[in-house]
Amino acid sequence: MPELTHFDAAGQAHMVDVSEKDVTSRIAVAAGAVKMARATYDLITEGRAKKGDVLSVARLAGIMGAKKTPDLIPLCHPLPITKVAVELTADADLPGVQIEATVKTTGQTGVEMEALTAVATAALTVYDMVKAADKAMEITDIRVVLKDGGKSGLYEGRK
Amino acid sequence: MPELTHFDAAGQAHMVDVSEKDVTSRIAVAAGAVKMARATYDLITEGRAKKGDVLSVARLAGIMGAKKTPDLIPLCHPLPITKVAVELTADADLPGVQIEATVKTTGQTGVEMEALTAVATAALTVYDMVKAADKAMEITDIRVVLKDGGKSGLYEGRK
Amino acid sequence: MPELTHFDAAGQAHMVDVSEKDVTSRIAVAAGAVKMARATYDLITEGRAKKGDVLSVARLAGIMGAKKTPDLIPLCHPLPITKVAVELTADADLPGVQIEATVKTTGQTGVEMEALTAVATAALTVYDMVKAADKAMEITDIRVVLKDGGKSGLYEGRK
Amino acid sequence: MPELTHFDAAGQAHMVDVSEKDVTSRIAVAAGAVKMARATYDLITEGRAKKGDVLSVARLAGIMGAKKTPDLIPLCHPLPITKVAVELTADADLPGVQIEATVKTTGQTGVEMEALTAVATAALTVYDMVKAADKAMEITDIRVVLKDGGKSGLYEGRK
Amino acid sequence: MPELTHFDAAGQAHMVDVSEKDVTSRIAVAAGAVKMARATYDLITEGRAKKGDVLSVARLAGIMGAKKTPDLIPLCHPLPITKVAVELTADADLPGVQIEATVKTTGQTGVEMEALTAVATAALTVYDMVKAADKAMEITDIRVVLKDGGKSGLYEGRK
Amino acid sequence: MPELTHFDAAGQAHMVDVSEKDVTSRIAVAAGAVKMARATYDLITEGRAKKGDVLSVARLAGIMGAKKTPDLIPLCHPLPITKVAVELTADADLPGVQIEATVKTTGQTGVEMEALTAVATAALTVYDMVKAADKAMEITDIRVVLKDGGKSGLYEGRK
Repeated sequence: MPELTHFDAAGQAHMVDVSEKDVTSRIAVAAGAVKMARATYDLITEGRAKKGDVLSVARLAGIMGAKKTPDLIPLCHPLPITKVAVELTADADLPGVQIEATVKTTGQTGVEMEALTAVATAALTVYDMVKAADKAMEITDIRVVLKDGGKSGLYEGRK
Repeated sequence: MPELTHFDAAGQAHMVDVSEKDVTSRIAVAAGAVKMARATYDLITEGRAKKGDVLSVARLAGIMGAKKTPDLIPLCHPLPITKVAVELTADADLPGVQIEATVKTTGQTGVEMEALTAVATAALTVYDMVKAADKAMEITDIRVVLKDGGKSGLYEGRK
Repeated sequence: MPELTHFDAAGQAHMVDVSEKDVTSRIAVAAGAVKMARATYDLITEGRAKKGDVLSVARLAGIMGAKKTPDLIPLCHPLPITKVAVELTADADLPGVQIEATVKTTGQTGVEMEALTAVATAALTVYDMVKAADKAMEITDIRVVLKDGGKSGLYEGRK
Repeated sequence: MPELTHFDAAGQAHMVDVSEKDVTSRIAVAAGAVKMARATYDLITEGRAKKGDVLSVARLAGIMGAKKTPDLIPLCHPLPITKVAVELTADADLPGVQIEATVKTTGQTGVEMEALTAVATAALTVYDMVKAADKAMEITDIRVVLKDGGKSGLYEGRK
Repeated sequence: MPELTHFDAAGQAHMVDVSEKDVTSRIAVAAGAVKMARATYDLITEGRAKKGDVLSVARLAGIMGAKKTPDLIPLCHPLPITKVAVELTADADLPGVQIEATVKTTGQTGVEMEALTAVATAALTVYDMVKAADKAMEITDIRVVLKDGGKSGLYEGRK
Repeated sequence: MPELTHFDAAGQAHMVDVSEKDVTSRIAVAAGAVKMARATYDLITEGRAKKGDVLSVARLAGIMGAKKTPDLIPLCHPLPITKVAVELTADADLPGVQIEATVKTTGQTGVEMEALTAVATAALTVYDMVKAADKAMEITDIRVVLKDGGKSGLYEGRK
């Protein structure tokens, strides 16, 4: 049966000892979305040319958010991130914005929290920039899409 | 037609001038959820007594996350937060965890971004603490439930 | 004769007591420049359309940098910033980039350090993004252009 | 022709993938200056004995600033810095203060941004501590003086 | 009987609501000490002239530490600090260093945590700078000496 | 005779060059205590079940505090921490709380400052959470209990 590794035998939270784990190349990809009204979607997609580029600002916020992960998540290890890329794509069917973040490291523990934090920060930034027009937006479906490297090997989640 | 207030007339991002806005009492409530497998749900709810309290750790992370909002969201104003409360409730029907954050300030701009950031941070922390058991969890339905104070008055979103 | 207000009578550094100063509306404008080779200038100005927008990234970094001022400058007071705008303009005569930052607050002390930090951070970000093409760029002429509000009144520096 | 490495093929900003680069010993030296009025120069140089040591405070701010580089510069990688030294020298000919920062790491990417950020932070701190006496000071000539280690080898800039 | 205000009725941690409290002028003074071997004491007191000034570096760290209080202490409110002074005094009788920090604000809650954090950070910095010579130093007697302003009025602790 | 390694030959503070030191497995254990009135002790120990768990909140703050060490201590190197555990034990004889923190890294310099900072942050958090009931608490006996790894080998301090 699985255990909650972030607690010791007495049930007390701790930062897990990874000092015996190998330094390996690791990657994680996370995804998520911001759903909005059709009119809001039109506003930000048309706005890319004329009124200001919401997606570029959110992309940068996502990249910087990945670096803040150990500040935000209490039991996360600080890690030397070697790559962060955040893609934001306007999705007319949603309607809204699809977000995907890829993070790499050469370290002793995985980077799925960094990828998830990048997605969440980018999504919050989209909300912030568009909220004057639409307060009813929702941030959804934040999940791990892929994780590889380290002892547990390849994991693939819902695309 | 609504405008994207975070861009100036030339389409360049800026932090909006709020210096002429009134200092008023403001409140925001945001909510969200972490969906997980039934076995995972059982693990964390039983674990509250014996193995360590995931929800308490996530609550604290959410409170601290609210204070980091202006560090994370590029165009957010720093604000003197006067209250943060984060509730995490195990929901057997989901199955998973429901999260609700309430933030107050006495200031010149609203605190919905602080409430949303508290929810997102608490949700990410739940993921982090349980991920060794279940990588397929999803963070969903992050939204503003209530916002009041300031010129735009009361807003109520989906409960 | 002027004194160094950041030291007490014994010559020890301290954060000046501003608790008796009035809460007033304050503004500061700072400026600076990044000088580069002609070929580098051509690269980033042509690149705005096709290859990626250096100036937009630097603008956002400058805005976020203003918020980090009390973290960077040891004796700076934390302040509730109410506005930050950072303009970056390609200047073919320099050749390079002109930067101007405007910061406002409603507080007990001025915001010239926030404006200067915004300019410095934006300039460092330009350097970072272009350094693979040109390591000899120089950041120059960082200065206060205007400061107003508070007891000392209007100051206007070199444009 | 050189390229802007911080953008991908679609022109979107990203943190460059350095995971395949070698972990090598790297060093960077940056320099800069704060120009001031003669009377201001006299004030801080005489003040070193009697009124408080501006240069010592700025040196420490520069060292701490180097550690904040990945927080300030959006696309900078976090790095395990192994050495920071910041020299501030009173220069009667300027008149003003000459600043030089040396940063070392054993990592996958260079530390010139850390050295430049140390210089900029030290310079901003000099401005902050002396601004009550002289608002017209200017921060100038921030540049990379030397960079070594890594694939691109030795670079020497203007002394 | 006194209550633990940082928990709600259900025993869950929260950041106390201070939005109804008056904005008043508040002050707190905290103190503490670092005890060391006689030889270590001689080293740092003689060193002030020749080898580098441990106490000046620790003073600056204490001042900056006060500003980081809401980042460190989970349920602390962010506050607009209006003054920080940190005194370090060599005490031959201890032998060691006595530390006293004074913090002021104009706000809705007290600043004793800021004063205590300033003392603790200054003490840790003394330890860091001298540890190559003496690992057995101890940080002791960190306490609130005075607190005033706000509803609870004047408190005076052990000098 | 021992030297103050954090100063260069001219007595100027610097971050020591550790780039030639070996990357080895390192560990440090620090301890400390919070002394309080008997009634306060009773309040927090009884409160663990009914009113909220002071020690759990302080434990988490201590873990997160360890990660902030290079932000707080000016000349500390940033380090890839691989483990943090913080134990808080109610001690009826004190009366008060005993704190012990263990930190590990695989790096070029020791982690005693991280362990001491974890203890200090946990102690400050205990004070913060209980101060409404008892302002006269004192934080004492913060010290290094054990340090191992690296060239200087095993050090054991007062238990």
